[in-house]
Amino acid sequence: MAEVTATKTGRHYTVAEAGNLEALEKKEFIAETLGFTGMQVSLNRAVPGQSSPYLHAHRQHEELYLFLAGTGEFQVDGEVLAVKPGTMIRVAPDGRRAWRNNSDSDLLFIVVQANVGTLTGQDGIRLDGDPAWG
Amino acid sequence: MAEVTATKTGRHYTVAEAGNLEALEKKEFIAETLGFTGMQVSLNRAVPGQSSPYLHAHRQHEELYLFLAGTGEFQVDGEVLAVKPGTMIRVAPDGRRAWRNNSDSDLLFIVVQANVGTLTGQDGIRLDGDPAWG
Repeated sequence: MAEVTATKTGRHYTVAEAGNLEALEKKEFIAETLGFTGMQVSLNRAVPGQSSPYLHAHRQHEELYLFLAGTGEFQVDGEVLAVKPGTMIRVAPDGRRAWRNNSDSDLLFIVVQANVGTLTGQDGIRLDGDPAWG
Repeated sequence: MAEVTATKTGRHYTVAEAGNLEALEKKEFIAETLGFTGMQVSLNRAVPGQSSPYLHAHRQHEELYLFLAGTGEFQVDGEVLAVKPGTMIRVAPDGRRAWRNNSDSDLLFIVVQANVGTLTGQDGIRLDGDPAWG
């Protein structure tokens, strides 16, 4: 798959098409492409035998790892966890983390980063004036 | 699927299992379950004919809609966009948004919220001392 690029932009939105995640050629970071300033998101496909090149931690960002397909392992502070479709892991900034695909099929997952403590309370505004779909 | 609950917690991580998203019975918000304070995340399955009950906007949060399976429509400020697997949409706080599943199969998607402008620059810390996987 070619690099993910924005396909359409309006005053309050931007769209990009990642296509089938099984066809990802490399890790795709989408924050800059889509204009995010409060989160970073990456789309990841790890082939059999592939692993994080190194452990990493964060200064202020928490991370979500959401596994969509395949199986593998994830470690935090030396503790190893099995992951499968639907596994979600929050890692606090200080967690020393890495993943690996020790299976014989692709491991697909999404990683989201955000700055801890920045979410506000009730932020949504319900707009009752117009029906959403006429 | 039963409600998503945390299955394992360590000093710097929390794990939950959402299982197969096709089996979701209702919208699942995972921030509280997993301890996030910088992002809100929901897992969504819309059945054929289902739509947002109302348009909504936000005060300070930007949103990512990432569509994983099925097809449908998304609107921002009255403009309607077709969505399919791999479609990613960033909506700015002021965007008046709604989705609908106008197809004959389930529409699966993830929604992430974060507070605009809160991401820091280079936040990751590469830990080179130990190999990630021995």
